[in-house]
Amino acid sequence: MKKNERISIISKILSDHPNEVFSYNYFTDLLGAGKSSVCEDVAVVRNAFEISGTGRVETYSGATGGVVYHPEVLKSEEVAILEEIAKLLLEPSRKIQGGFVYYSDILSHPRYSKNIGRIIASKYGGKGIEYVVTTETKGIPAALETASYLNVPMGLIRRSNRVTEGATTSVNYISGSSNKIKTMYLSRRIDLMGKKVLIIDDFMKGGGTARGMSNLMEEVGASVMGICVIFVTKSPMEKLVDNFTSLIIMDDDDIAGAGLRVSLCSK
Amino acid sequence: MKKNERISIISKILSDHPNEVFSYNYFTDLLGAGKSSVCEDVAVVRNAFEISGTGRVETYSGATGGVVYHPEVLKSEEVAILEEIAKLLLEPSRKIQGGFVYYSDILSHPRYSKNIGRIIASKYGGKGIEYVVTTETKGIPAALETASYLNVPMGLIRRSNRVTEGATTSVNYISGSSNKIKTMYLSRRIDLMGKKVLIIDDFMKGGGTARGMSNLMEEVGASVMGICVIFVTKSPMEKLVDNFTSLIIMDDDDIAGAGLRVSLCSK
Repeated sequence: MKKNERISIISKILSDHPNEVFSYNYFTDLLGAGKSSVCEDVAVVRNAFEISGTGRVETYSGATGGVVYHPEVLKSEEVAILEEIAKLLLEPSRKIQGGFVYYSDILSHPRYSKNIGRIIASKYGGKGIEYVVTTETKGIPAALETASYLNVPMGLIRRSNRVTEGATTSVNYISGSSNKIKTMYLSRRIDLMGKKVLIIDDFMKGGGTARGMSNLMEEVGASVMGICVIFVTKSPMEKLVDNFTSLIIMDDDDIAGAGLRVSLCSK
Repeated sequence: MKKNERISIISKILSDHPNEVFSYNYFTDLLGAGKSSVCEDVAVVRNAFEISGTGRVETYSGATGGVVYHPEVLKSEEVAILEEIAKLLLEPSRKIQGGFVYYSDILSHPRYSKNIGRIIASKYGGKGIEYVVTTETKGIPAALETASYLNVPMGLIRRSNRVTEGATTSVNYISGSSNKIKTMYLSRRIDLMGKKVLIIDDFMKGGGTARGMSNLMEEVGASVMGICVIFVTKSPMEKLVDNFTSLIIMDDDDIAGAGLRVSLCSK
């Protein structure tokens, strides 16, 4: 295989497996090249990824040496992506009776879920996250992509007790949208004891669901490293959780008939 | 930028955006290189991707010319991935009362959802699929990844009528696991009229859910190009839908105490 082709393949493999460590032996075996050649190839890929602002390629030398790619998102790219989503939210056809905004299609679109996952993963990349958890349903795509970029599993919290989850741990929580007491369930087959988890949800108004997820994590012995919601409403200002990050603020104060206003948290 | 670095970046971009057409102008602008150089670079990437069995890079010449990457999965790779999943299914701890097998964690793991998505996308790559649809919840990750590899949106069918979906189209279906009549809902804001859709679900026993999804697609004027389920039970042999593809067969005929047996559809 030619040097150019090796570089192409290494670029593809690292890009497809973010935050996964590959040994030099893996590449020398796969590419039929010596270690010094592979080292040179990796240096080219590292430069190229750095120049194009897609992240850092780190190398570790020695017997247990290897290569790992940490994706990063430039601030300008993050803003451009979130502004694109914010613009979509403002489409008049998205208004739903009761003050809701239809955004299920946005979060289910691979283009947006991937980019949101990339943005969230780049924010939590250095925190040693071992698990991403989310509550069904609309946040699943973004949570999955975040987990994918962080190279960790995703744990799925259910809103009803399903036979296919086996025995579960459950907590009650107050659902903000309906102001009712509801229950969420996590399969006991997902072992989060002592694990560092990142909680992701699509939407926060009062923060009841996020608080429920935090309580559930405490219940199963996990350590919550962060809560990240994609959309957060401006009011109420006081949420039921203290520390959370959000990407887009929805100002749904429609009293004056101003309609929805949207702003980015990162600007 | 050096030739090697251009090759690295082109490899990453094509790999990150399967089935998306990029114009040569896009690359010449991004990389600050002439068209003939970019053409040479793309030829290297095409060779590298072909040698490594990850898919075809196609180029179109002329004024509207461009480059597109179609991911492919080698049969040997498909078998290896599905055998890994099959082996997981046989773990004794996965047995749930009532003859169910716990697999929520497998489908929620980015490693498996990505690979399953890649396998399904490579089977339906040439069929002009315009939308992937799935019914919540466990099939969402695989459906999302399939949509991502096919470069199309994912449409999410709900099992209950949610205010956040706005007006919906609904159909009734017979749920195999509970043998009850249930209802599934699709937001009317998802316009599938005349669209070629691929239906994905995680599990099929009797085929009631798949049939419901087919009926729902008919109701909204979509054209079902395929139904793909990840796990299918051997019995009953007669399913409520005729044409479907599945990846792994679960033989849950436990009468003789043999326990679960698992086999691949592709072998």
